[in-house]
Amino acid sequence: VRDALEERAQAILRTETIRAVQWREGQLLLLDQRRLHAVCEYLAYTDATEVAEAIRAMVVRGAPAIGVAAAYAVVLAAGQAHAFAGSAWQTAVQTDLVKLRQARPTAVNLHWAIDRMQARLASLDGSDPVPALLELAITIHEQDLHACRRMGQLGAELIGTDANVMTHCNAGALATGGYGTALGVIRAAHSAGKLREVFVDETRPWLQGARLTAWELLREGIPATLIADGAAAFRMQAGGITWVIVGADRIAANGDVANKIGTYGLALSARAHGVKVMVVAPVSTFDTSIESGLAIPIEQRDGAELTALAGQSVAVPGVKTWNPVFDVTPALLVDVIVTERGVIMAPDAEKVRAVLGSGPASSR
Amino acid sequence: VRDALEERAQAILRTETIRAVQWREGQLLLLDQRRLHAVCEYLAYTDATEVAEAIRAMVVRGAPAIGVAAAYAVVLAAGQAHAFAGSAWQTAVQTDLVKLRQARPTAVNLHWAIDRMQARLASLDGSDPVPALLELAITIHEQDLHACRRMGQLGAELIGTDANVMTHCNAGALATGGYGTALGVIRAAHSAGKLREVFVDETRPWLQGARLTAWELLREGIPATLIADGAAAFRMQAGGITWVIVGADRIAANGDVANKIGTYGLALSARAHGVKVMVVAPVSTFDTSIESGLAIPIEQRDGAELTALAGQSVAVPGVKTWNPVFDVTPALLVDVIVTERGVIMAPDAEKVRAVLGSGPASSR
Repeated sequence: VRDALEERAQAILRTETIRAVQWREGQLLLLDQRRLHAVCEYLAYTDATEVAEAIRAMVVRGAPAIGVAAAYAVVLAAGQAHAFAGSAWQTAVQTDLVKLRQARPTAVNLHWAIDRMQARLASLDGSDPVPALLELAITIHEQDLHACRRMGQLGAELIGTDANVMTHCNAGALATGGYGTALGVIRAAHSAGKLREVFVDETRPWLQGARLTAWELLREGIPATLIADGAAAFRMQAGGITWVIVGADRIAANGDVANKIGTYGLALSARAHGVKVMVVAPVSTFDTSIESGLAIPIEQRDGAELTALAGQSVAVPGVKTWNPVFDVTPALLVDVIVTERGVIMAPDAEKVRAVLGSGPASSR
Repeated sequence: VRDALEERAQAILRTETIRAVQWREGQLLLLDQRRLHAVCEYLAYTDATEVAEAIRAMVVRGAPAIGVAAAYAVVLAAGQAHAFAGSAWQTAVQTDLVKLRQARPTAVNLHWAIDRMQARLASLDGSDPVPALLELAITIHEQDLHACRRMGQLGAELIGTDANVMTHCNAGALATGGYGTALGVIRAAHSAGKLREVFVDETRPWLQGARLTAWELLREGIPATLIADGAAAFRMQAGGITWVIVGADRIAANGDVANKIGTYGLALSARAHGVKVMVVAPVSTFDTSIESGLAIPIEQRDGAELTALAGQSVAVPGVKTWNPVFDVTPALLVDVIVTERGVIMAPDAEKVRAVLGSGPASSR
């Protein structure tokens, strides 16, 4: 059984050239995104606590990728718990699940994946839980990749020919189980010959655009131009941009979107210039338990992300900082949310409900 | 005469703790703003070509400071021309004036200062031109400092008590003959006990906010919080910000404002949140020869400003870049322009004309 699962885990990514999260021979491999683009190195994990720390430290980042990594981490946690505690593994594993949930607060996919794993876990007996849990983690991974490919197709259909688009942060293969959400749409549009240029916000403070998105696009020969975050509005004023295409970390029941800090300002600029805003996110990104974006917890990270870069001081020592790493874009500023279940034009609570279906997102 | 002028040049900055541009014993001293905050070092210039290069390389930056530095550079150029060419110095000096004018394209204060120096220069005979030109350069410097103090007063009167304000780039003592334009208003508001907190955009790519504005504010004990440029809209959404206060590099006859890249997006966000936008700029910043901001030349700088930082690569090598370092904010998004001659509420061509008076800006 394990061999067959290992083979299936390998097969997931056979078609992909960029693999942020991999399961191989009982280990979780994470491409260290702190060191990209300079160094392309995988770190191997066998301990769920260390995966939680890797998520916190942004070795792996991007809401869907965090979800997939957490699913595999639950497999590691259950395997260790069974090795130490035998048939009492279900009690032993709980601490690790809490640690994983607490790794980052905003991306709801993390909780969604752990919820699914925990439901399966609760149905197991005292015997080795790894095969059953690994099967589900692999399924979650496969589904995320398939969702990205489907969203790519659906989103690309909305884009006109010869399009100049803008993206923020990295919602690419690196941020997902593979292929990407926003960059999945951009990949699909490029394949369809519709794309002229992608303008990539560098995305301070972590520079996901400059380091990760530009890296993905260059690898695939998709025309990309890097701009400072502050240049986005001016580029829209210059004309010719038709879409802003971004991912999401959590979407409220009414369609409000939490995404990387800067997305909200970008959406305001887009609206002022008649540029449309497309949010591309699998249904695992929806949190229908909260009514609006106001209730989405926004992660604040260490001010050192602003004051230092590559070990160098880039701001005056001692200055206070405010470093929220996500913001909330009201649904009113979003023209369309693309999910693997279909597109939601001019999203509101009713339309979100219609696409998600009656069951919770996690029942897909 | 020279001793009296030297004494006057020293006297200008006696009240100031931050002195970006200084004339001392026949030399122009520029505080090297490329190395701030890490190193506080003055570079000494006796050659106008080298000053032109220093302006281009941003040893000195900020529209009014560039104007003052260029005025002193004309003194150096004329002195050298007279030493080499004697009474034919007026012909010999022209090449240096062209080089100075070409140093940076957007800030009009550079041309304004050189225009004034050139007019004086044309009135001189074949004898040593330095005293007369130095006298004018010092006057330009003094007037800029006085203008900043006056604008500080006028701008601070517009700000309510317990104010949270936001600023972009550095329009401080470092960017002017002293005291600052936007930061002059912030200094005056702080002195008047009106200020709660200044939110400082880090201002990519050159990080003028993180390195220079935060440095100025910390030195004077003005409460400052550094934020990523992309966090500005979200901070406004959180509430409590009443003013965005910025400088300008060129203002068209209709009140359109060219300022550091990112200002336009900030103004769009401000308007969306009912936050008012104050532009603080001496009349030397107005270019009434052009009707609207569309005609303002926007400097494009090397993409290396985006892709490298302190010698480290911070973006994928080989990525294309678009690095305009200014943008244009339409007058419609500006609530008030503060000049040393008075404030212009809801600026338009007529109101700009009324405050500038009938003569050209340079006749003040």
